[in-house]
Amino acid sequence: MTSLIQKICDEIQAQTGGEEARSQVEQRIRQLTMPPRAMGRALDLVEELTFAATQQVRCQKPHLILFAGEHGVVSEGVSAFPAEVTRQMVINFIRGGAAINQLSRSAGAGLTVVNIATGGKYPEHEQLVNSPVATGTHNLMIEAALENKAMEEAIELGIKLAEEKIREGADLLACGEMGIGNTTASACLCCIFTGASVEEAVGRGTGIDEAGLQRKKEVVAKALSRVTTDPKQPLEMLKQYGGYELAGIVGVILACAKERVPFILDGFNVTAAAVVATALAPRANEILIASHQGEEPGHQHLLKHLNKKPYLEWGLRLGEGSGAALMFPLCKASCQMVADMATFEEAAVSNK
Amino acid sequence: MTSLIQKICDEIQAQTGGEEARSQVEQRIRQLTMPPRAMGRALDLVEELTFAATQQVRCQKPHLILFAGEHGVVSEGVSAFPAEVTRQMVINFIRGGAAINQLSRSAGAGLTVVNIATGGKYPEHEQLVNSPVATGTHNLMIEAALENKAMEEAIELGIKLAEEKIREGADLLACGEMGIGNTTASACLCCIFTGASVEEAVGRGTGIDEAGLQRKKEVVAKALSRVTTDPKQPLEMLKQYGGYELAGIVGVILACAKERVPFILDGFNVTAAAVVATALAPRANEILIASHQGEEPGHQHLLKHLNKKPYLEWGLRLGEGSGAALMFPLCKASCQMVADMATFEEAAVSNK
Repeated sequence: MTSLIQKICDEIQAQTGGEEARSQVEQRIRQLTMPPRAMGRALDLVEELTFAATQQVRCQKPHLILFAGEHGVVSEGVSAFPAEVTRQMVINFIRGGAAINQLSRSAGAGLTVVNIATGGKYPEHEQLVNSPVATGTHNLMIEAALENKAMEEAIELGIKLAEEKIREGADLLACGEMGIGNTTASACLCCIFTGASVEEAVGRGTGIDEAGLQRKKEVVAKALSRVTTDPKQPLEMLKQYGGYELAGIVGVILACAKERVPFILDGFNVTAAAVVATALAPRANEILIASHQGEEPGHQHLLKHLNKKPYLEWGLRLGEGSGAALMFPLCKASCQMVADMATFEEAAVSNK
Repeated sequence: MTSLIQKICDEIQAQTGGEEARSQVEQRIRQLTMPPRAMGRALDLVEELTFAATQQVRCQKPHLILFAGEHGVVSEGVSAFPAEVTRQMVINFIRGGAAINQLSRSAGAGLTVVNIATGGKYPEHEQLVNSPVATGTHNLMIEAALENKAMEEAIELGIKLAEEKIREGADLLACGEMGIGNTTASACLCCIFTGASVEEAVGRGTGIDEAGLQRKKEVVAKALSRVTTDPKQPLEMLKQYGGYELAGIVGVILACAKERVPFILDGFNVTAAAVVATALAPRANEILIASHQGEEPGHQHLLKHLNKKPYLEWGLRLGEGSGAALMFPLCKASCQMVADMATFEEAAVSNK
């Protein structure tokens, strides 16, 4: 572990928490002109955000960092789409044609696209960070997927980018990922960190057929038998089975945890990275907020491991940060409600 | 029935539907740069909105019309809050202090507050339509709640206000309601139109205690035994058991159905009004979109009756249109996604 990564983990673990801020916002909510808890999960959401930030937040400047990385394991036939789609989608992202472009724009959220480990050539673009640490992973079925040094660089790049965005005023962060083959990587991490079986952790990803699904399960089982897996060695497990885009997300989460900026989880892959981040620094869990529960079967195991309850069950399985982006306006609306509503006393409304 | 109400119902029933528009948007969705149906319910939502509008919509100008009406049945002790709260909340709405003020503002939605049947005196305000058709309902347990003429005026006021907003460019409408006691009215309508039992239809409203809940059930049972109930006589049932705010909502829904502007349902009360509207003009169902399933137990029976699947399960029970307002940004985001994404061909991304 690099000294920067070690330092940030130590800082996260040494923090005071958001308990007092949450208790204050709970008290405020009780005084607002509505029946007790009448806004249900919108109030839970505000309390989670307040706890994360250690103060009331407005979530008016969300930012999404989308990491793209290629996966060597695609050669095993684990994905419904060919490997080159990862590079093609990076172009689509910077041209503004993907789902996440529309969803982030609609939410008024910033979007940064990071080529963290693809072999593509891209035109310069203000939204693109073109800093690959590798051209992709090795085939996780037969060898360690990541190079140690490149993995550390990827984590540090995530830290740096998140810190930059926070310095620029972002008050809510999320990550997206693009990497054909990466649900195979995340399924390995899901098994290791949550104890889920291969059967429970492996799903259809972008939509592989029945034969492909069986092959994918065999690949994950074979990969996991390759070394002695150990959830207490998060970086070693990330190196063996992860992706560089997942490493980048780990970095973003660590930076958010250090700065106490709420981080909205997305689907299976982002949540797998979050599980690695919390294995490195358990208190990083305090800034994580679930958005949706997706179609990938392992996602529920990861959310349960993190003890997070999703706000949307929309059957999403796109990735890109799409579920997190759908949560941005719900965070903003819920926070604005609690911040700006009148109390019973202010409004002279009779309480029950 | 007045000739205006009869005319609008006839016009709704004579329309051509949104089948072709929905089929076109389904076809477009298949070509967009994402795996098939990977955005799950966001795509269902766009298809519902397209079907409702008979064309692709952007949902960029939502408007919420909030009707306030008092209820005579409050004297039976069916609510956790005193009757004067209805008037006090109207003041809170025009001062901008209620939940719905923040939620509609956060969504960039217009908000109109309508004193449709309260006895309060209010200052003039640009957001307030102060046109009461009555000062409240009679006690539905012992007599018809609404006066026939005032009920028709309330429906026509709803039609007029919705048509005004649509003329001004609103492309998505919703209603809210404020009326201490109105879940008792809606419970009666729920029983009549869905066949739910009193036990299934009556809930705690703003949070009445166990003894109050039992009393509320007795009130509903007694009310329903007062006349021969008949779901085939929707206006007669609305007159016997409704509220003027519910009548106003019926009017808004009829106008939306005539103009083919999607209408986002809110909680128990708005959905009860929608059931009355679809009993008057069954094809009005085509423009209705569920937002959330709330805490009030009868809500699921109403949604099932309308064959609508909610998008949020947030345990809401506030009313005011709060659940609908939370859906506004989700409608906008989903529509923008489908409208502005690139196709596989446009983006030169390999399809599977």
